[in-house]
Amino acid sequence: MSLEPLLRPRSIAVIGASDNKARIGGVPVDLLKRAGFARLYPVNPKNESVQGLPAFADIESVPEVVDLAIIALSADLTLPMLERCHALGIPAAMVYASGYAETNEAEGQAKQDELTAFARRSGMQIAGPNCMGNANFSAAIFTTFGQSFQPGEPAGSTALLTQSGNMCATVFRMARRAGVTFSQVINTGNEASVEFSDYLDYLASDPATTSAVCYIEELRNGPKFLAAAAKFRAAGKLLGVYKVGASEKGAEATRSHTAALAGDTAAYDAAFARAGVARAGSLAELADLAYLHTIGDKIGGGNCAVLSISGAAGAILADALALAGGDTPTLPQHVQDGLTAQIPGHSMVSNPIDMTGNVVNSNEFVLECIRLALSPDNIDLLLLYMPGNFLTQALDQVEKAAAASNKAIVVIDTFAMADQARLAQHGIGYFDDFDRAARAISAYGAWKRSSSPLPFRGGAGGGGCPDGTAPVESPHPNPSPEGEGLSVSWPPFPAGRTALSETEGKEALARFGVPVVLDALVHSETEARSEAARIGFPLVAKLVSPDVAHKTEHGLIRLGLASEDAVAEAFNAMMVKATSMNVHIEGVTLEPMLAGGVEILAGVTRDAVFGWMLTVGLGGVWTELMKDACHALLPVSDADAEAMLRSLKGFKLLDGYRGAPKADVAAAARAIAALGEAVLAGGERLREVEVNPLLVLPEGNGAVAVDALVLLKEE
Amino acid sequence: MSLEPLLRPRSIAVIGASDNKARIGGVPVDLLKRAGFARLYPVNPKNESVQGLPAFADIESVPEVVDLAIIALSADLTLPMLERCHALGIPAAMVYASGYAETNEAEGQAKQDELTAFARRSGMQIAGPNCMGNANFSAAIFTTFGQSFQPGEPAGSTALLTQSGNMCATVFRMARRAGVTFSQVINTGNEASVEFSDYLDYLASDPATTSAVCYIEELRNGPKFLAAAAKFRAAGKLLGVYKVGASEKGAEATRSHTAALAGDTAAYDAAFARAGVARAGSLAELADLAYLHTIGDKIGGGNCAVLSISGAAGAILADALALAGGDTPTLPQHVQDGLTAQIPGHSMVSNPIDMTGNVVNSNEFVLECIRLALSPDNIDLLLLYMPGNFLTQALDQVEKAAAASNKAIVVIDTFAMADQARLAQHGIGYFDDFDRAARAISAYGAWKRSSSPLPFRGGAGGGGCPDGTAPVESPHPNPSPEGEGLSVSWPPFPAGRTALSETEGKEALARFGVPVVLDALVHSETEARSEAARIGFPLVAKLVSPDVAHKTEHGLIRLGLASEDAVAEAFNAMMVKATSMNVHIEGVTLEPMLAGGVEILAGVTRDAVFGWMLTVGLGGVWTELMKDACHALLPVSDADAEAMLRSLKGFKLLDGYRGAPKADVAAAARAIAALGEAVLAGGERLREVEVNPLLVLPEGNGAVAVDALVLLKEE
Repeated sequence: MSLEPLLRPRSIAVIGASDNKARIGGVPVDLLKRAGFARLYPVNPKNESVQGLPAFADIESVPEVVDLAIIALSADLTLPMLERCHALGIPAAMVYASGYAETNEAEGQAKQDELTAFARRSGMQIAGPNCMGNANFSAAIFTTFGQSFQPGEPAGSTALLTQSGNMCATVFRMARRAGVTFSQVINTGNEASVEFSDYLDYLASDPATTSAVCYIEELRNGPKFLAAAAKFRAAGKLLGVYKVGASEKGAEATRSHTAALAGDTAAYDAAFARAGVARAGSLAELADLAYLHTIGDKIGGGNCAVLSISGAAGAILADALALAGGDTPTLPQHVQDGLTAQIPGHSMVSNPIDMTGNVVNSNEFVLECIRLALSPDNIDLLLLYMPGNFLTQALDQVEKAAAASNKAIVVIDTFAMADQARLAQHGIGYFDDFDRAARAISAYGAWKRSSSPLPFRGGAGGGGCPDGTAPVESPHPNPSPEGEGLSVSWPPFPAGRTALSETEGKEALARFGVPVVLDALVHSETEARSEAARIGFPLVAKLVSPDVAHKTEHGLIRLGLASEDAVAEAFNAMMVKATSMNVHIEGVTLEPMLAGGVEILAGVTRDAVFGWMLTVGLGGVWTELMKDACHALLPVSDADAEAMLRSLKGFKLLDGYRGAPKADVAAAARAIAALGEAVLAGGERLREVEVNPLLVLPEGNGAVAVDALVLLKEE
Repeated sequence: MSLEPLLRPRSIAVIGASDNKARIGGVPVDLLKRAGFARLYPVNPKNESVQGLPAFADIESVPEVVDLAIIALSADLTLPMLERCHALGIPAAMVYASGYAETNEAEGQAKQDELTAFARRSGMQIAGPNCMGNANFSAAIFTTFGQSFQPGEPAGSTALLTQSGNMCATVFRMARRAGVTFSQVINTGNEASVEFSDYLDYLASDPATTSAVCYIEELRNGPKFLAAAAKFRAAGKLLGVYKVGASEKGAEATRSHTAALAGDTAAYDAAFARAGVARAGSLAELADLAYLHTIGDKIGGGNCAVLSISGAAGAILADALALAGGDTPTLPQHVQDGLTAQIPGHSMVSNPIDMTGNVVNSNEFVLECIRLALSPDNIDLLLLYMPGNFLTQALDQVEKAAAASNKAIVVIDTFAMADQARLAQHGIGYFDDFDRAARAISAYGAWKRSSSPLPFRGGAGGGGCPDGTAPVESPHPNPSPEGEGLSVSWPPFPAGRTALSETEGKEALARFGVPVVLDALVHSETEARSEAARIGFPLVAKLVSPDVAHKTEHGLIRLGLASEDAVAEAFNAMMVKATSMNVHIEGVTLEPMLAGGVEILAGVTRDAVFGWMLTVGLGGVWTELMKDACHALLPVSDADAEAMLRSLKGFKLLDGYRGAPKADVAAAARAIAALGEAVLAGGERLREVEVNPLLVLPEGNGAVAVDALVLLKEE
């Protein structure tokens, strides 16, 4: 649905309009009046006029069918009023009232469910309840009772989308202090009907919006979010996200607050990586991302040249960038030589570059230092530390350098004395704090790099765990249609069961190309030959008998059988020997010979919001004790799976650790990707699938699922 | 030495004094003049007067022997001038000149070495070179050319001690913006003579100073630093530290900048933990620590009650506190019930506490909510989120609550509208950012808790790795005098060797009580009995013969021998059997029977700054791949060592993981502490000792060093 009536209404009725400009029913009338909004109709049965405008006794008396009804009534009066609005043909409403699901009580939840049901039935666009409303700066339309958003503010191209009214105001003010201007500010409230991703989808297509920064507590529809995020990427728009609830306490507090189900942190992490959003670690960083996007055209990534009048500042910035995931690459020697020739005295020029305090005596060389520092291909932007008067004195040089460069310059002045507005006019970024600068630049740079068309798309196509920034090749989120494009399918799931047996599970996964350990009990040479061919070589053959203790000594265990003939020979020899020993013979088991190898685990669980999520980790104690695991939403390609494995801290165990043979990582990745394909084809009954261990054999020998757990939903 | 002449001079000559107040030789004259400093003597051979004061042609013409000579001359002229000052009996000098070791060139280093040698020879206190000078606000004495420090600033009780002039100004300005006032501001420069810990020691005894916040690049004397830090703790003064160089790039840049040797991050971490400093993660946090100390009397630790008008803010703060190492403990049920009775509507009260936006309608209940939230014993302080007008309207309530409570209240206003001065008057803390508040409170709370006399001293006595905050029982840093208090000593180290053999190493460590795996090759029953007694039980006995393959089957390996008689019986039986088999007999080895057990490693290396540092980690791949190791400076007690083991992520492997028997952690801790004692007794030849693996057997069975590496310095 188009959200135009809600977000860009041409006419508005304020039901419960107040003469008091400070009250909830008074603020939007005041703001809209001051914004010059013409078709505004206060509804108040007790007053003849509201804030100088003629008031209408009821919504039915309003002389036109408005686009939007703002309902500033209590919860009990709201639904009947919505029904009357709908009867008049009003397409959209904004509900301020609280007393719904956010109360965490059955009564409030029931009220909200009624609202949801009404919205579905009527097709009305209903924002809220328990929301603060919106401010559309680009169209000068204010439907909020929040007082942070004033008609006087200049309009811009950043959208702010939040699930908390107060945090909305907080980020807005933080970003405004940095000079960011906004197109839309939207507070979603309880999202009984129109929900977060609906707004996000609208903003992806909003021509007035080039970036959106979002405060998220819980998403209700993962696939819709991923689809909207994909639109942002396709349009080259920044999507910045701060998600609360990383700690148990935080998640608990959020759950209570928004009455939304607690999301799984890992699933959100995987989803944000898949979606390719810019991830903020705090509200301040969210505001900073919006700020950096205003000079974003010139920022190619997070590789910084650090040019400083203080060696200490250079070191601090290098630390802070490293911690935040950015970098200060060493400059090429010829650039270093050039810098040495410029800077009086002798100082560090490898990056960070120390110009020393000598800049106070002469600063003509600053221009050339900046040019040199920005010249290498492996440098995305310049971080310039010049506090207070250092900057003032060299500002002309810096501005000239900015005009001459197609890469960004970001100034840091810890004395907080810089003229931010003047810097902004010259497209120069500005921070007064090392850490905020380093965090924001690293996060923005990572996003920018991941969205640049060439260097990071080749082959990988999705995934995300390794650096959290891999792009999305396939915009359609999982679950994909059952069995789409696959020539195989699961065997019918047995009725009344909640799990498959290990054998059933392995056989089913094998259909999709997951290599599994198969074994067989054989009773004849013919059977041995055919089963051996099915299982594959090399094989181990063992006599099965309760009567023999030291089978190896008696030749009743034979290793490394490499062909059908060898298996047949071994089978026959065992029969002869066992017969001669006069023991009970149950048969001979054949199983693949698994020597060496490293155990890993691969499992897929179904997240309530985002669908199938793959977890890959090292087997045994590693994943459990060390939390050394990696998550990604399905689907994953072979390359994605390999990148996930390589991102594990314990990857070295697969990579020829301490002289051990390298494990067959490619085969393990193929097996993991096949597991993902199997799960996506599994349909609604499938609940969880885990392969543990997946034994990764030495290179060239493959990887096999030794055990498989397939859990089903009850019918 | 007392630094009074340097830090609290009664008379000052400025050599190279300038008439220009903006020049390096002019700033201190200007500042001192404006501060009303009387006995001030500008020295300038070209001018009759400097800034209105009579100028002296040379230092010899100055009519008194000043306490301090500020030398604002180039490097080449500085040493001759110092010699003249010394000849006159001037006890202290400050050297502004650069061109010394910070150039990273041999010439500069040589100049600095000359300066150091002169200081040693003359006994003069020489600050710098390449330093910005100091500002003593408590005595109104300005010996700096930095313009951030002005006589008009109010004096306070915070000292700022930094190894970078520019960072000095940065932290000063940040802290001043928060209302912090200073006693002393000291910039150490290249520290050719007077060095960081000399200043720190002075500040520990300075009655005007109740806290010091420090920017550190590299320390030159670890033991002196630890001793000064111990004085801070003993005096109940805050010592806050930010250390740059956490990343490789940062360390590299620092190395170049200060010409100091790169410190080992782990050694600094261990030293700071041992010293019980408050550790800041950034310069901003350093300023915030100083700020929090101004209300520090009321802050007991980092356990916060979070009271908020926004559920989102509560969740964000809970997240930020958890990330920073603070906590939001769940409130007792009766407190929750009390809060529920106070707060209109239904909302979260377990902590974080959501008062909701209803506070705008009525705020009388805020006072009682604060009282309730602060009432439990497990709550150290209240974090109150009330932005903008919410706070303005409820400020009376908040001030009443602050007056009534002996615990601290810290307000967060993300709209940055609070009247900070008024809050300060009422002893109420204030931040405008969630993360800065959470980080500072967590760091300050951890420090405060570690320094409180009762709850955390019992037993542990030192250590520090587990939470970085354990107190120091023994202020004397390692290395301790060789063999002090120990009745044992190392065998004489063999001349010309750089290592002991494994056997030599184990035998030496055994002297100090480190249990080691001893084995013996025996050739007779008598020898078997005596060696068995030496090694201990249970034992494993094995026939040594090149001719026998399957010894177990032939009874030539015997496990679990629990007594001398059992060993004798086994020895004799093996002899009979082996003789009957007609094989070559080399003897029988006896070794302790080590079943089960978990391998750990314990090693001690010598840090150039801090001396002996113990590293404890899980054995095998764990420490190497997962960086799951813990470090502490020696000495460590048994309890310290156990705390180190328990702090490992992989500790569960020692603690009965997946049904395995619990390992003998107490014995492992004893062995590790004994290793530490051995190393401290080792003297100068000892270079490094590593026990790897230390096998930790099931509880009650002890722990034994299976291998030991003892490296020696070349003579």
